[in-house]
Amino acid sequence: MWKFIKKHQNIADIMRDKGLAKVGDGLVNLCYSLAKSEVLGEATGEKVRDSVLARALRATPIYSHISRRTDTGAAADAFEAIVAYLWLTEKTTTETLVSSLVERLDIHSEMNRTQESEVAVEAFQNMLEGLIDLLPDS
Amino acid sequence: MWKFIKKHQNIADIMRDKGLAKVGDGLVNLCYSLAKSEVLGEATGEKVRDSVLARALRATPIYSHISRRTDTGAAADAFEAIVAYLWLTEKTTTETLVSSLVERLDIHSEMNRTQESEVAVEAFQNMLEGLIDLLPDS
Repeated sequence: MWKFIKKHQNIADIMRDKGLAKVGDGLVNLCYSLAKSEVLGEATGEKVRDSVLARALRATPIYSHISRRTDTGAAADAFEAIVAYLWLTEKTTTETLVSSLVERLDIHSEMNRTQESEVAVEAFQNMLEGLIDLLPDS
Repeated sequence: MWKFIKKHQNIADIMRDKGLAKVGDGLVNLCYSLAKSEVLGEATGEKVRDSVLARALRATPIYSHISRRTDTGAAADAFEAIVAYLWLTEKTTTETLVSSLVERLDIHSEMNRTQESEVAVEAFQNMLEGLIDLLPDS
């Protein structure tokens, strides 16, 4: 379907693709918005912080594929690129991504942003763990 | 599929739903990112400006359903809420939304942001025109 996707040979190559990260930014924000809306029972949404995605990535074995000196922004980009790649190549769907977030998104409307971020890290970690086996050479 | 959607009786009611606008913000940005990537032939993306969505809305008959004194932010929210409502209720799909943008998104990589915004207004107007008949009481 998507003409613009480049074929990637391995995980590291996907994680370095800054264009994919831009597509993934929109996708990750939409999925989080849908998951949060499902959990709270009303439509809502906001931008996911880079620090949340970076911490989720660092908690999975995928982190071994990038440099230890990668900063928060680059780690979040790598997370977003992975999700975009698997979604664009139809290895996963919006519904599957949202479901994996909802499983661990134990939030309620009285939480402040810091508390919500803590829970969101676990939800994104769960999402990424469900995607590992779908990546090339893993 | 989505438990959190409230039933809306008419267009004005949908356009005032600030929660739907938040979901729609993520959806609109993702669709624009996908459309721009398709047109340019490489993955890319960015946040769509409120002014682009507001101008697109004002160019369609749907604009008659909101107050003339609505500011740019509220008009963009109304646009986003409409797209979110029709997507969440499965009256449209990501693919359909992206295709309607691509039809009019005559951009190239040398355009500056102002030039791109001019073209993007037409693309979003085209998208919204394709959605009008899917809305309640229209």
